Amino acid sequence: MLYILDYAGVVVFAATGALAASRKQLDIIGFLFFAALTGVGGGTLRDLVLGRTPVFWVIDPAYILACVATGVVVFFAAHLVEWRYRLLLWLDAVGLAAYSVMGAAIGLASTSSASIAIVTGVLTATCGGILRDTLADEASVLLRSEVYISAALAGAGAFTLLEVLGMPSLASSAAGFVVAFGLRGGGI
Amino acid sequence: MLYILDYAGVVVFAATGALAASRKQLDIIGFLFFAALTGVGGGTLRDLVLGRTPVFWVIDPAYILACVATGVVVFFAAHLVEWRYRLLLWLDAVGLAAYSVMGAAIGLASTSSASIAIVTGVLTATCGGILRDTLADEASVLLRSEVYISAALAGAGAFTLLEVLGMPSLASSAAGFVVAFGLRGGGI
Amino acid sequence: MLYILDYAGVVVFAATGALAASRKQLDIIGFLFFAALTGVGGGTLRDLVLGRTPVFWVIDPAYILACVATGVVVFFAAHLVEWRYRLLLWLDAVGLAAYSVMGAAIGLASTSSASIAIVTGVLTATCGGILRDTLADEASVLLRSEVYISAALAGAGAFTLLEVLGMPSLASSAAGFVVAFGLRGGGI
Repeated sequence: MLYILDYAGVVVFAATGALAASRKQLDIIGFLFFAALTGVGGGTLRDLVLGRTPVFWVIDPAYILACVATGVVVFFAAHLVEWRYRLLLWLDAVGLAAYSVMGAAIGLASTSSASIAIVTGVLTATCGGILRDTLADEASVLLRSEVYISAALAGAGAFTLLEVLGMPSLASSAAGFVVAFGLRGGGI
Repeated sequence: MLYILDYAGVVVFAATGALAASRKQLDIIGFLFFAALTGVGGGTLRDLVLGRTPVFWVIDPAYILACVATGVVVFFAAHLVEWRYRLLLWLDAVGLAAYSVMGAAIGLASTSSASIAIVTGVLTATCGGILRDTLADEASVLLRSEVYISAALAGAGAFTLLEVLGMPSLASSAAGFVVAFGLRGGGI
Repeated sequence: MLYILDYAGVVVFAATGALAASRKQLDIIGFLFFAALTGVGGGTLRDLVLGRTPVFWVIDPAYILACVATGVVVFFAAHLVEWRYRLLLWLDAVGLAAYSVMGAAIGLASTSSASIAIVTGVLTATCGGILRDTLADEASVLLRSEVYISAALAGAGAFTLLEVLGMPSLASSAAGFVVAFGLRGGGI
């Protein structure tokens, strides 16, 4: 479950990065750059503050290749989608939910501290999108939507609470994902 | 003395972050996010470049809790303050002064190099505010005020010079704080 | 060769940072800050993700001193140059080319992975300029020029390919530099 959430988070965030590149009419290399930046940005910051270096995508380059593949697909398919910005927001919600759980899981495994797990969950879930919006010079999703950080916090919090209570990882992951996605999706 | 400066820096920077959230009319979670980001942002970058990982707030989550508490207080009290922006600037000056000393002290202890101590002092003192302004989409304090970086540099430099000359830590800390705060406060 | 490229990258990026400070009419401390930030920013991120901490300029403060010296020179010389922005773009192209090779070389040495080497090459080459433009509140070079990231990618790719094929380091470095500089220079 965590493994699926991990790749799901990378791929959908990469897709939102590529969609941002599409809105800015960049060339294909710009798509790949924004895909990689958004796909692995949040997890990179998480690994850095936890001292897990080299960071995850240096250890396993498959993450970068997944971002590149996503960027290429979006480059050739983006013009088919009429509502690119709306699609970006929904994919961003999936990525946010997946990463709030993943970030909390890795923070909890690294530190055994519930409060740090919640912080790394929020950090992982929000930083890719913040980086994307800052570098693409878009109005930050942070300031546009009030439930953005709240959804990440609720997802990371729900996951961490259930883990600490001893629930099986599959259940707490699924619960965290549903809480975050429901909250964020409802706010779009 | 260093211990007091450390928490003082975290709390006042957290308060400036929360005030920025207030100016952007975010919800309480937005207050907490900006409080934490601004409160620990500069010290996080300092720890990363020095290789002190996991970073300080992962090792001691009390820092995050201090930011959260500050964010909550500001959320309920901010509307009472008429001149929020002016208050933000003065608190920012206190945080800048505290962190220029703290950052230099930790850089000096880690590397025994005076030039690195000055750099980490400036880095720690300025990065929280830069992050806050960039993410809140405000005109950066970096570009608005000429004495912002100068004050951090003077504080870190005064502290480092006195330490290298063998002054007691209490005296060099106090001197660094006064120099940085005086310079920055005079420029508001 | 790598040693020359390394200092060349730091100095020319530092010069572009100082020129950005000049365009913003900052004081001399602002020049030094932007010089250091742009000069060592890309390499700092490279070292962090590879887990090479403390980062290079903490280990060898001569890099910071080179940035400071560059900032001082630009501070006293910048008003002599009529086309500061054009000069900034050409220096940025030199720095981009030097750092795309340096970043790839260090990534390859650290991980023995060609794909990671290309990523760290692009990261090192582009992040200093991105930081400079974001903090100076300029239109990002990322969005203005389509060949910015492409040039870094081509330089890092050419170097890495020739290294993997067993060419002497001098030849692959020179080839990577020429490819990146030619592509970027042609796009100015």
